[in-house]
Amino acid sequence: MKITFLGLGIMGSQMAHNLAKNNANLTVYNRTPIDYSLFKAENVTIADSLENAVKDADIVFSMLSTPEAVEEVFFGNGKVLKLMKDHAIWADCTTVNPSFSKQAFEQAKLNNIRFLDTPVSGSKPQAQNAELIFFVGGNAETFNEIKPYLNMMGKKTILVGDIGKGASLKMLVNVMLAQSMAIFSEAVLFGESMGISKDFLLDLLPNLVVSAPFTKFKAEGIRNDNYEVQFPLEWMHKDLHLATLTAYEVNQPLFLANLTKELYAGAKNNGMERLDFSAIFKHLKNN
Amino acid sequence: MKITFLGLGIMGSQMAHNLAKNNANLTVYNRTPIDYSLFKAENVTIADSLENAVKDADIVFSMLSTPEAVEEVFFGNGKVLKLMKDHAIWADCTTVNPSFSKQAFEQAKLNNIRFLDTPVSGSKPQAQNAELIFFVGGNAETFNEIKPYLNMMGKKTILVGDIGKGASLKMLVNVMLAQSMAIFSEAVLFGESMGISKDFLLDLLPNLVVSAPFTKFKAEGIRNDNYEVQFPLEWMHKDLHLATLTAYEVNQPLFLANLTKELYAGAKNNGMERLDFSAIFKHLKNN
Amino acid sequence: MKITFLGLGIMGSQMAHNLAKNNANLTVYNRTPIDYSLFKAENVTIADSLENAVKDADIVFSMLSTPEAVEEVFFGNGKVLKLMKDHAIWADCTTVNPSFSKQAFEQAKLNNIRFLDTPVSGSKPQAQNAELIFFVGGNAETFNEIKPYLNMMGKKTILVGDIGKGASLKMLVNVMLAQSMAIFSEAVLFGESMGISKDFLLDLLPNLVVSAPFTKFKAEGIRNDNYEVQFPLEWMHKDLHLATLTAYEVNQPLFLANLTKELYAGAKNNGMERLDFSAIFKHLKNN
Amino acid sequence: MKITFLGLGIMGSQMAHNLAKNNANLTVYNRTPIDYSLFKAENVTIADSLENAVKDADIVFSMLSTPEAVEEVFFGNGKVLKLMKDHAIWADCTTVNPSFSKQAFEQAKLNNIRFLDTPVSGSKPQAQNAELIFFVGGNAETFNEIKPYLNMMGKKTILVGDIGKGASLKMLVNVMLAQSMAIFSEAVLFGESMGISKDFLLDLLPNLVVSAPFTKFKAEGIRNDNYEVQFPLEWMHKDLHLATLTAYEVNQPLFLANLTKELYAGAKNNGMERLDFSAIFKHLKNN
Repeated sequence: MKITFLGLGIMGSQMAHNLAKNNANLTVYNRTPIDYSLFKAENVTIADSLENAVKDADIVFSMLSTPEAVEEVFFGNGKVLKLMKDHAIWADCTTVNPSFSKQAFEQAKLNNIRFLDTPVSGSKPQAQNAELIFFVGGNAETFNEIKPYLNMMGKKTILVGDIGKGASLKMLVNVMLAQSMAIFSEAVLFGESMGISKDFLLDLLPNLVVSAPFTKFKAEGIRNDNYEVQFPLEWMHKDLHLATLTAYEVNQPLFLANLTKELYAGAKNNGMERLDFSAIFKHLKNN
Repeated sequence: MKITFLGLGIMGSQMAHNLAKNNANLTVYNRTPIDYSLFKAENVTIADSLENAVKDADIVFSMLSTPEAVEEVFFGNGKVLKLMKDHAIWADCTTVNPSFSKQAFEQAKLNNIRFLDTPVSGSKPQAQNAELIFFVGGNAETFNEIKPYLNMMGKKTILVGDIGKGASLKMLVNVMLAQSMAIFSEAVLFGESMGISKDFLLDLLPNLVVSAPFTKFKAEGIRNDNYEVQFPLEWMHKDLHLATLTAYEVNQPLFLANLTKELYAGAKNNGMERLDFSAIFKHLKNN
Repeated sequence: MKITFLGLGIMGSQMAHNLAKNNANLTVYNRTPIDYSLFKAENVTIADSLENAVKDADIVFSMLSTPEAVEEVFFGNGKVLKLMKDHAIWADCTTVNPSFSKQAFEQAKLNNIRFLDTPVSGSKPQAQNAELIFFVGGNAETFNEIKPYLNMMGKKTILVGDIGKGASLKMLVNVMLAQSMAIFSEAVLFGESMGISKDFLLDLLPNLVVSAPFTKFKAEGIRNDNYEVQFPLEWMHKDLHLATLTAYEVNQPLFLANLTKELYAGAKNNGMERLDFSAIFKHLKNN
Repeated sequence: MKITFLGLGIMGSQMAHNLAKNNANLTVYNRTPIDYSLFKAENVTIADSLENAVKDADIVFSMLSTPEAVEEVFFGNGKVLKLMKDHAIWADCTTVNPSFSKQAFEQAKLNNIRFLDTPVSGSKPQAQNAELIFFVGGNAETFNEIKPYLNMMGKKTILVGDIGKGASLKMLVNVMLAQSMAIFSEAVLFGESMGISKDFLLDLLPNLVVSAPFTKFKAEGIRNDNYEVQFPLEWMHKDLHLATLTAYEVNQPLFLANLTKELYAGAKNNGMERLDFSAIFKHLKNN
């Protein structure tokens, strides 16, 4: 099987290296020039054009920044869907909204390409250690064909349902992330206001069953007033926006998610858009 | 050391049995008549009056329903503070607001009684298995005197700070519980609205790092539409009320906790006050 | 000047009659067949096709149901923009979001048609009595050309700014309407809960300076539990959705509007979508 | 009839002057020394002590800062209730919560004093021009005895219901004030963000039927970035707090009022506590 990986940013490069380490027959390509030396050392094929990258591939993985970038590369100017072999598979790992995945599926079908939405749960460290979780939407048979490769990059693959369901679940998870972070932040601030020491709270709360476990890592950032970006606050705000937009489409009231969205909007307007989303703590502290 | 335990409801009885199992020199008493046979089998002394229950005690533990009940028993008609020995210790395990704990401390001091607020994290199963966590507010020396007994009833004791800090932390934890439950509920409902199966969501979400781990247990209730009470929704609503009231006192805005409070208020008004607080799922489903 | 009016629903028919009463040289057309007898009595020209309705017009007014309908008629299958005379004016009175107005303007320009967004403030009685207020976005010169005709249909015309600004202001006004209605409803319910009579509150509150004056009319509906539709709740919900979507685009947090949106979403889910938006009272009463 | 007025602050002094202008047989007193020269010019009796102020009075009006101050003066150290004549009337114009009014009534009854809660709607200019509205709770007969004097100070008196209902309505009105101000502020900010001029919005919006009429006056403050205090933001925050506390007592969810309360809390924490409550605009602008 010939595998191609498009998009070698923070996440994509780690994922591609894990395919290489598992001896996949791999070709990689990034639209903007990057340093390919590590890939060369791994005997990975470096394509010299988008066309050469995808034309012989059995499976194309993509990990791009936004739905707009995916559209541009696959069914806009990049025309990857037209360049790919008949019946080949396109698995898109990018975080997009469910309706975009459905649109991508329709475009793929027109070009006789099989599509799956395969977004991931996890960030840089999980990508590096092949500990990602893949949320997959689409056909079970197609999923089984790509599963061995997903397993090289992650620790778990979940077929959530048909097209768009991978994207739906990913959106859901990000919304929970945003809200749990806000709740945790308000709790720490409230505790401090009642006279409990911040360090005590940051040590204790994340280890209680009432707190989402990821707050353990964010607590260290809060302790040191360090909001170095892992997942940018402005993207979290965008995901909250996409979620409430989708909730409107499916007639689901979301009281807390909408309010959380506005809290992040305030943080963004106060110059925290490029900090980690845990900077919502810093914003709430000032308000 | 002579130990007395007042209040033998769902929580208190389990806690007292654990003291008995560890061979504490124990006297128990409940204001309303109950079946004491299990305690008799454990050779626990059953007091025939409040006075006889407390007059010789070195340490009195109380686990009552509300601040009002504590007031009634200890410095209202019950006059326990006047009946206790000079310099004895009163450890109140009841969930109360921080200002009430401070008031209890002042009343105790007037009667030369040493007071600690020692509320617990955990419900019936944790009480039964001696897996409670004690949040303690008060003097470190006094705390060390009662610690061996707390350890018979729980797996962890935490001296949070001075008087009222145990109550403060307990309130904080309950607020996180209420909010995490609401967020989880909205997430499951949103997932279903997007076409993901409810069972799938209930299996997966509680195990992700974005969810508070206690949701694992609540997910089973939601699955079976079973909201048998473990912690009544109306008490959760009351705790949210006390928390926002305290937040006002300490000048701490709490956006999400206040909104969550109103969601529980709606559930309460729709006849769910005596269901488990996880019935917020059922309420949000209807709105 | 030859005037054409497209869209003869509740609002549009009243507006067209007012043009007729002022002796405008008027042609009317509705896509679905209606009873034109009143227009015939006024000597208004009844077009037998969309093409015949617009091909000679100097000014085309449109009052349709949704942006989608406007798109269909003017630059979709209806192709009105291609059928109209060069340099003619299109004034769209439909309630749409600002970005749609900008899109309509671009399409009009491609066809050498001059465009204005001219949504109205007011509902059926104001339309009937020529008491509408027009919020206009676009070129001042073009505005002056149509102004005499707007004055036949309304009591006030306001040039808010360039293209899309009429739509922006209309959206803003509807958001205030939705929120003021919700606040008023919560106040009446709260007053009742405190033991003040509902009739007393419905008589008094709308006349105080703290209440939006339109609540005078809605109070009568609440009094009689009559939510006969004047402006459907589901459209109000849609306008709140469009507003929060626009707020996201312009980076403006809207705390209260987002929460209000979810309250209307709940009402919609409880079968009130086709009632008047004042039915939010009925929904809040049940929650 | 001998009338006494206690509390000669911004509001109280204007109200007392209006009694004097109408030739009431008036005695005045302020706990802290003030300049009484204007009252002397009006031939008003200036009491030299609290006791001398109230002992012969048929009706005592009070206009103090907080419930705590009223308690202190009337049934705390001030003991006014014990100093007053049997069967005299006490009309309290102070803004308090309904349960406090009920408590005041009980205390008055114990001392054979007839009590009414008579808070006012209006601020300094209305007090000055005898244009206040009195919301009265209590007995109709007693109300009729004081009505002539209320009419000297205001333009309208409303007997809302029994004891505490005047206070209830006053609280309701203040909550609507707080919320309408916040909605208006968000609307102006949203309009500006969409590119509509601030001056245009401040001229137009307050005159539309969707805006509470009092925003006309606040619009001028916003225009000039002038938040000179008429009604302090921290008191508005306190009233919102008292209202949500009362709503909890009467089981009434208040979604928008609770969120509004937190927005004012944020403003208070950002140093705006002593500005006019319309400074919520300034706070929302920064967030």
